[in-house]
Order: sequence, then structure tokens, then C-alpha cells
Amino acid sequence: MDRFTVTYRIVAEDDADAAARAEAIALEDTLEIPRDVVPAGYIEDVVLGQVQSVTASGSGVWTAKIGYHIDAVGRELPQLLNVILGNASILRGVKAVDLTPNDDLHARFPGPRFGAAGLRQLTGRKTGGYVCPVIKPQGSSSETLARLCYLTAAAGADIIKEDHGLANQDAAPFKDRIKACAAAVAQANNERADQGDTSRALYFANIGGHGDQVRDMAYYAKDAGAEGILVIPGLFGFDAINRLAQDAELNLPIMAHPSHLGPYVLSPDHGYGHGMLFGQLMRLAGADISVFPNYGGRFGFSQDECMRIVESCRAPDGIGPAMLPSPGGGMSIDRLPDMAAHYGADCVYLLGGSLLRYGENIGDAIREMRDGLNAA
Amino acid sequence: MDRFTVTYRIVAEDDADAAARAEAIALEDTLEIPRDVVPAGYIEDVVLGQVQSVTASGSGVWTAKIGYHIDAVGRELPQLLNVILGNASILRGVKAVDLTPNDDLHARFPGPRFGAAGLRQLTGRKTGGYVCPVIKPQGSSSETLARLCYLTAAAGADIIKEDHGLANQDAAPFKDRIKACAAAVAQANNERADQGDTSRALYFANIGGHGDQVRDMAYYAKDAGAEGILVIPGLFGFDAINRLAQDAELNLPIMAHPSHLGPYVLSPDHGYGHGMLFGQLMRLAGADISVFPNYGGRFGFSQDECMRIVESCRAPDGIGPAMLPSPGGGMSIDRLPDMAAHYGADCVYLLGGSLLRYGENIGDAIREMRDGLNAA
Repeated sequence: MDRFTVTYRIVAEDDADAAARAEAIALEDTLEIPRDVVPAGYIEDVVLGQVQSVTASGSGVWTAKIGYHIDAVGRELPQLLNVILGNASILRGVKAVDLTPNDDLHARFPGPRFGAAGLRQLTGRKTGGYVCPVIKPQGSSSETLARLCYLTAAAGADIIKEDHGLANQDAAPFKDRIKACAAAVAQANNERADQGDTSRALYFANIGGHGDQVRDMAYYAKDAGAEGILVIPGLFGFDAINRLAQDAELNLPIMAHPSHLGPYVLSPDHGYGHGMLFGQLMRLAGADISVFPNYGGRFGFSQDECMRIVESCRAPDGIGPAMLPSPGGGMSIDRLPDMAAHYGADCVYLLGGSLLRYGENIGDAIREMRDGLNAA
Repeated sequence: MDRFTVTYRIVAEDDADAAARAEAIALEDTLEIPRDVVPAGYIEDVVLGQVQSVTASGSGVWTAKIGYHIDAVGRELPQLLNVILGNASILRGVKAVDLTPNDDLHARFPGPRFGAAGLRQLTGRKTGGYVCPVIKPQGSSSETLARLCYLTAAAGADIIKEDHGLANQDAAPFKDRIKACAAAVAQANNERADQGDTSRALYFANIGGHGDQVRDMAYYAKDAGAEGILVIPGLFGFDAINRLAQDAELNLPIMAHPSHLGPYVLSPDHGYGHGMLFGQLMRLAGADISVFPNYGGRFGFSQDECMRIVESCRAPDGIGPAMLPSPGGGMSIDRLPDMAAHYGADCVYLLGGSLLRYGENIGDAIREMRDGLNAA
């Protein structure tokens, strides 16, 4: 295939309208000029998007497949998103729901550095789901947060994720906090090793600062002992993940957080399909773990939408190695067996604020999480 | 005021539900922990968002005002967006529609460097609307694009905007293109000066490359002779604008492009209000010019939505100096008198693909644009 394909859900009046809208998308996301002034030759034959099919899906909805040539993209992720849904994101009734990569896309966007298999190695957690407490709330001191890191890591957590709202506020500035938390997790890992535990907790530091300091912050975190990075593509851009993922010297796994991305999936008519955004695009960007709100929590994702995300995280024909889904958002320990039955072992199970009810005994919550997952 | 205020449109079942939802937003966007485990003292009193009012707006919709303390933000723009709409962006029926800054926000986010008044000075266009051709399409060589730059600048254009899809593709790589186009505009400006013209064309180079190279690209463009920068916050993040705007050494005006941001405004129930996103947030980020799709073009913004953007660009109590609105999206020259009547003189009038119909006579189109604006 000399083109990668994007599938769009299009609201239209009839077959002719749907066909015209598909042609308009192909034009809008590449050349953005009237069709009658498209120059013949390379621009028309290669750069312009090509409508491959438009089929009725019922109820005023059509499905269109449009092929794009890598020449319209180049080598950088921001322009890829321009081609997939840039200006078309502003057209009424146009939603991108699926991406079929071709060899060009695979070559230029290799995806996750570690993926699901890599996380098994890094954590030493050979089987079963990953227990992942979220360290919070913001406003706490670095010492308080580091204490939570220590207690949860010592109790057997696999991944220690910082809250995405821990940025660079005065209460716990980025550098102070990262240093204290990484040291606390390292101490707990040493104790676990002394006790013969072959698994370890990975501390994922949240990138909290300016957009042009992401790389510096990631290196600072690595030097301080962090073994993973949390990035919010809805604030820093998807390319922020991509650049860290492709950095062989940094060589750290990346967890993507969904903050600020809600409007891309909440409308049936606009943005992206759940699986495309939280599965395909996160994986293409190079995230090893994709956080999303679980069904039945305080966010409104359905079970079907969550399963589509999981399928896209794991699809054998996706970009790069399979990544890990990570459902969260107001989960409680008693829901873990049910969740584990749906999500399986290759999944990072997030539990945040409710763990704080345990106070100094938060380690008990980690052990209960492990039991809950094992019970599935 | 010790807090800045965000106004949300909330879909709810009744007054009690609306009040509960407002409290949930205040918690979600700051601490993200259950209310009963919020630590007393600083975290509860300062960091936690405070619901200031919840009033019924009819038809199942309520309006809630929530105050946030700057301590929840820190000094970086990404975390400000986390506080305004981060996780709440994923809650169903929650839309941020207005921002009322306080002194803290004004101090930490000074806004546009130049604004509307600054652009009058930079262009030398003392009165009237700005004529702004868009150079395209991608797939053209740097020489072809530079020729369009020269012809439109020589004919009296005020701002030469690159198409947002001109990134770093092989047909016209970023550095080659920027150098050729800047030189072409400089030549035209020299000729205009020789003819006694006291105004000049500013060439705005599109940032096209990786997210972590934005600053380097902006400096490259400046060194090559560009006198403005085009940035897509929907791809590079709003902080990319903020960092360039606050860079005193760079000292270039910034134009923000709406690509990939459509889903934030297209749903009545989610994301941002039009005026908040394309006016208030662009201005807070530091854009001097905010591009958006004009009503009646191929995108679906209404006249009222466009006027709200304009009001927010110009509001005297907004962040920093007033900025310039820039309506575009399939406009034609014959619509300019009507547009000028609505948007007035402090406005950048975009015209793109349809100019290509003039071929080598594209300068005629620029003169017709000027006449159209003057006729209003």
C-alpha cells in the first residue's frame, strides 16, 4: 500500500452529499484549496488525499475511507495529525474512527519503546495485572508524597504513578518532588530485593512544567532515579510522547494521561473514536501505557468504548508492540475482580484518591489490590 | 480577588444535581480525591477549587462559577489548563465558557507581546483592515511558494501567512522554504519602500517540525528574515505560543491557527465556548492574532459565535493587550465588504486557495482585497 488509510464517520444527507463531504475532507486535510485549482501532477496525484470508499451505515451516517500519502506528512507527528484530522476536526459531522497504517507509517512512527512485553521485564512482574497507586493530592509537600511512594512501593506496587496535577507548584516543586519520590521508591525496592522479591516498583514522574522543557524534565527525572515518565498529550501535544519514546538515551517507558482530551471523544459526531485516540494514536505516539476512564466510574465511558480502547492497545497489526491499557477514574478495590475479568493480566490497574482512606496503612490497600487481581 | 474564576455550562437534572456536579468539577480539576479525604488546612482552604455560584439557565442547563487559587496552577500554562478543564473535559455535560482573570493570572500570564496596537506599528498600516493572503498548497516547491510570497507582498499585502499544512515535507523542507519565502518578502518590501510605501508585509513562517524544536525553528525563521510565527496550539500545545510570546529576544508577533481544535467547540455540551477558546485562551497564551473559521464559509461557526470570539479578542478587561481576530476558511473577495462591516478595521482578513485562480496575476487579487476592505 502506498497510502495509509483513515476511516471517518460522516453525517450526511444522502449518498451524493456523503461522497462530496468525503472529497472535501481529502482536500481539506492536505491541500486546502478549491478542487479546480489543484495543480496537475505530483500535487494532485500524490499529495492530495484519495477517497477510497464511501458506504452508508444507516441513520444518516456514512463511513468513508481516505488514503493519504506519507509525502503529505513528512517525518513529524504534528503534521500527521494535521493530515488525519487537522482542519477536518472543525467540520461538522466528521469523526475519525480508525487508522490503517502502511509501511511508510510504520517506518516513520515506530511506536512504543517497551510495550506490554517490555513492562514485564522492567517490573519483574511475570504474570498478573499491574498494581498502580496514584500519588496525590497536589498541595501536599514533597515529603508527604514521597512517604506515599515509599509505603505503596514497599507493599508491592508495580508502578507508582504521580497524579497528573502534580506539576511544578510551590507546595512541591518538580525537581524537589521528583528527587524525594524517586529516592523513596528506590529505598522500598532495595528492601523488596533484600526480602527476595524479584519484582520492583517503577516510579513514573509526571512532566510538570513548560512545554519546551519536557526533554530536560524527563532527563532530570531519569537522573534522579525515576524509571518512567507520565505525559499529558492533551496539554503538551502527542509529539511530546513521540520524542521521548524515540530517545534511545533516555530509554524510559511512557504513560499517557487523558487530561484535556475529553472533547475529542465525547461527541458521536466529532473528534476521534475511543479506540483510535486512546489506543491507536497513543500507541503510534509511542506510549507504553494508556490511561483512560473506566466504565462505571465518575466518567461516562461505556464498557464497549473501553473494550475498543483495549483492542486497539493490543491489536497485532497496530503500530509497534502492543501497549498496556490502564483504566482508572474513581475505581475502588472491590471492583478489581470484575475489572480483571474484563481487562486481563496485561493491564495497569489505577487506584487513586480512595487509597488515602488507609492513611499510614496504605500498604494494606496495595496488598488488597493484589489479592483482588489474583482473585479474578 | 484571591481567585480567578471559570464559568461552566453544566447539564444537570435539577438544582441539587447541578450543585453536586459543580462541587465535583472543583474537586476533579484540583485535588482529584474523594471529598471526605481532603486534608484540612492549606489543601482544603487554598488548593481546592471553590464553587462560587450555581444558577439555573433553563432547559436542563445550569451555570456554575468556580474560583481557583493560583497555587493550584504554579507558573506554567499546561497546569493552568489542567485546572480550568483538565479532567473535567472528560465529564459529560461540562463546558467551560468564560474566564475571569485575577491579578495573579495577569501577573503570571501577561498575554500578547504586540497585540492589535503593536501590529499597526509593525506593518505601518495605520488604518483599515489587514490584507492577509495564505501561501499554499503543500507539495509546491520552495521556489513556487516564494514566488507567491513575492507577488502578494509586492502588491501590498500586510501579512503573508503560510498555510498551516506547510510543515517539513520533502517538497519544501522547513529551512529551505523559510529562507526562500523570507527573502522574497524582503525583496518586495524593499521595492515598496523604494516606491514610498510606508507600510510593509510581514512574513509569518509556519512552525512545521517536532514539538521540542519549536523554539529553534522560531529562531531560525527570525534569522532568515521572518517577521512573525504561525503556531498550531492544537498540535504543539498552548504553551508553545506562550513561550514564544514571552521570549523578549525572539520578539516576534504570533498568529495562532485553529487546526485540530474543532472538537473543543463543536459540541454544545463539552469543551470550551468559542469566545473562551479562540479569544480568551489564545490571548492568555500570548497570540497576537487568532485565526478562526468565518461564518458562512465551509465550516459551521455561526455569526454569533464569531462575534463572541471578536469580543474576547478585544475585551478591555482581558489578559494583556487586545489581539486581532482573523476570520478565514473559504472566504472570497466579494464577501470582504460584508465582513469588514462586521469585523471592522482591527482584523486580519485571510484569503487562501481562491487566490490561486489569479495565477501570476495574484497581485490583482491583493489589490481587490484592499479595495473590498476600503469599500466597507
